[in-house]
Amino acid sequence: MNIVVQKFGGSSVKNSERIKAVAQRVCTAKEAGNQVVVVVSAMGDMTDELLALIHEISPDPTPRELDMLLSTGEQISISLLAVAIQSLGHTAVSLTGWQAGVKTENLHCKAKIKSIDAQRIKQELDKGQIVIVAGFQGINELGDITTLGRGGSDTSAVALAVALQAKICEIYTDVDGVYTADPRILSEARKINVISYGEMLEMASSGAGVLQPRAVEFAAEYGMKIHVRSSFNDKPGTIVKEVSDLEREMYVSGVTHDLNVAKLTVIEVPDKPGIAFTIFEALAKARINVDMIVQSTKAETVTDLLFTVSKDDATQAMQIVQNLIPQLGAKGLHCDDSVAKVSVVGAGMVTNPGVAALMFKALCESGINIQVISTSEIRISCLITAEQAQDAVRAIHSAFKLDADISGPIRPAVDLL
Amino acid sequence: MNIVVQKFGGSSVKNSERIKAVAQRVCTAKEAGNQVVVVVSAMGDMTDELLALIHEISPDPTPRELDMLLSTGEQISISLLAVAIQSLGHTAVSLTGWQAGVKTENLHCKAKIKSIDAQRIKQELDKGQIVIVAGFQGINELGDITTLGRGGSDTSAVALAVALQAKICEIYTDVDGVYTADPRILSEARKINVISYGEMLEMASSGAGVLQPRAVEFAAEYGMKIHVRSSFNDKPGTIVKEVSDLEREMYVSGVTHDLNVAKLTVIEVPDKPGIAFTIFEALAKARINVDMIVQSTKAETVTDLLFTVSKDDATQAMQIVQNLIPQLGAKGLHCDDSVAKVSVVGAGMVTNPGVAALMFKALCESGINIQVISTSEIRISCLITAEQAQDAVRAIHSAFKLDADISGPIRPAVDLL
Repeated sequence: MNIVVQKFGGSSVKNSERIKAVAQRVCTAKEAGNQVVVVVSAMGDMTDELLALIHEISPDPTPRELDMLLSTGEQISISLLAVAIQSLGHTAVSLTGWQAGVKTENLHCKAKIKSIDAQRIKQELDKGQIVIVAGFQGINELGDITTLGRGGSDTSAVALAVALQAKICEIYTDVDGVYTADPRILSEARKINVISYGEMLEMASSGAGVLQPRAVEFAAEYGMKIHVRSSFNDKPGTIVKEVSDLEREMYVSGVTHDLNVAKLTVIEVPDKPGIAFTIFEALAKARINVDMIVQSTKAETVTDLLFTVSKDDATQAMQIVQNLIPQLGAKGLHCDDSVAKVSVVGAGMVTNPGVAALMFKALCESGINIQVISTSEIRISCLITAEQAQDAVRAIHSAFKLDADISGPIRPAVDLL
Repeated sequence: MNIVVQKFGGSSVKNSERIKAVAQRVCTAKEAGNQVVVVVSAMGDMTDELLALIHEISPDPTPRELDMLLSTGEQISISLLAVAIQSLGHTAVSLTGWQAGVKTENLHCKAKIKSIDAQRIKQELDKGQIVIVAGFQGINELGDITTLGRGGSDTSAVALAVALQAKICEIYTDVDGVYTADPRILSEARKINVISYGEMLEMASSGAGVLQPRAVEFAAEYGMKIHVRSSFNDKPGTIVKEVSDLEREMYVSGVTHDLNVAKLTVIEVPDKPGIAFTIFEALAKARINVDMIVQSTKAETVTDLLFTVSKDDATQAMQIVQNLIPQLGAKGLHCDDSVAKVSVVGAGMVTNPGVAALMFKALCESGINIQVISTSEIRISCLITAEQAQDAVRAIHSAFKLDADISGPIRPAVDLL
């Protein structure tokens, strides 16, 4: 029998009506002859409410206790969904992360899944149960509850799908799939039918909030097919899978933007070996992801070192680097959080060198100044001021004609320079 | 080093201000040189809010999922209290029921604790941590979360105190201790300084909500001293312990009343062997506690069988007995939930046969009709109409002069008949 893993995010289970609708959908998958495992996030605003509660007590709660608290959010959702499914006449059992055998590393608040012992889930599936698993959470080797960080339920779902050798991992969300740009800010944005793991990873990492990057990595590593679709309708969404060049629809898949960015500048560091190592090793130890990095020589002996982190990490990153300033012999440290990153993602750009130029042209013609540029094989990102982000997305989306209807199987995005 | 177990109920942790006050009290005990284990209930109305949430989905959720849901209430409290204690500069760690090694039988919603594996708690205490444990919950041998029923956190606290060989188990509540009657309905009620396990058990079982009866049984079995006291002030409360006759203050300790009672009457059952067995075995299987039982012969061949259960169990008890009616050959079944049980409790009544008569006289003089009488060695209970409960408590309390100031070490309650 096929195993299907379905994941429902917070907006899909935000109240009892939505939970009943999800139950209906889950039962349909079961009635179609599948064994069904459902992964759920905390209800809508539950996480924020819990955070407000703990912040009344301390502005800076310890990570272990934060995980203890936040993990209750999914535990509430799984019990409610199990009962909703039982009300529809199916048998269902809810499992917390630790009951589902989700083992993580010891780190709190952004732990990675180390392994999944799926024995209990398999037992319940064999008994004919629909199994509801709390996403976002696991247990470390000390027996403490850990959480996987923002969007962690996606990773829970994909990891469970892999462990259970599921046929597919369905990620239900409040949009119809992955779009060529954020449809909330650009109505011309078009749904992408099929996208490769590599492109999805770049899009997820550069601001498309629809999937956690780690979930895409996991799926790519094990070849698990993901279907990103809406929990509000039955339309087909976006399939994330290995895509051959022949299947590819466009050279450029989409434009993303990310407002959750802060730019830190270490001012006038002596230009000598070991500076970058010192800073980024300290940040890595604190598990702070550094994204764009630019080092620009100001004079012969000093340089400005500029890098970006997510806004969530900005305060901690500032503290860490501030402590290093005397040791580095730098002049100062500056933080700017009114920046945005806009990116173009597309596997086709490897063989089309004009992509970068077209993007820069679109930004230039809109009067948008580029502060930092970074690239990967299939992505080009520009850091700009936050208030111009929407204009930038529109200009780039239009320049690459991503709003155009697609008919042929493959074609260049546009007349590349 | 002495181990002290402190238990705080829902009203003591109902908001962040109260949680901070509890943290302060816990730290004081730690600073006095004790190893401290704290057991907490869910915050104030949390349990009711969670119940409202699940009842939006189903009027009759399955017990396993109900436990999965309700156990989040204490998990929230423990994390908040741990953070509040950490903010005061002490180290603390929160543990769920399963992390604290609380093993229960498989039954959901009113499981009994089978054993406690206190290894993790001891490890944390040895590291100098204040340990915060979620009350009311445990884990069964399947690895599922169970809860202990109404007031279960008291039992968690006493069981942990026994497992850890604590010096004392302090139960913090919103009243100053155990009273000769409920001080909310009788202002003359007097705080009892010392009470025996036996009397406390009778009082708890007959309506004094201050302690779960099972907790008292546990304490009596292992000789664990309980101190029931207020979380709002530092006054000494009531010590529950083995009491010698010499220490006893009064022959009668208190008057209790219980409005959480429903009276079921099986009408005109044939008067033959096996009837009571059939009914009460069926109820026992469903874990419904039957309290008072009266069988009164109506005619030579038929009898009315009358018994009381808690209101929470009334609907289920009615269903169970209704199904037995044809088999029993009874005429019908009737339920009356506008009844109350008033009781007099006192170890001294064993040797003072006038206690019952004085109680009946007090009720009679207040024009209160007695529907059912039941007695134990140290308790006499009368079932009356609910609306007369307060008058009954006042009359009995006054008849036994429980409001009188006590000076001498021992004396009869009053001039017994």
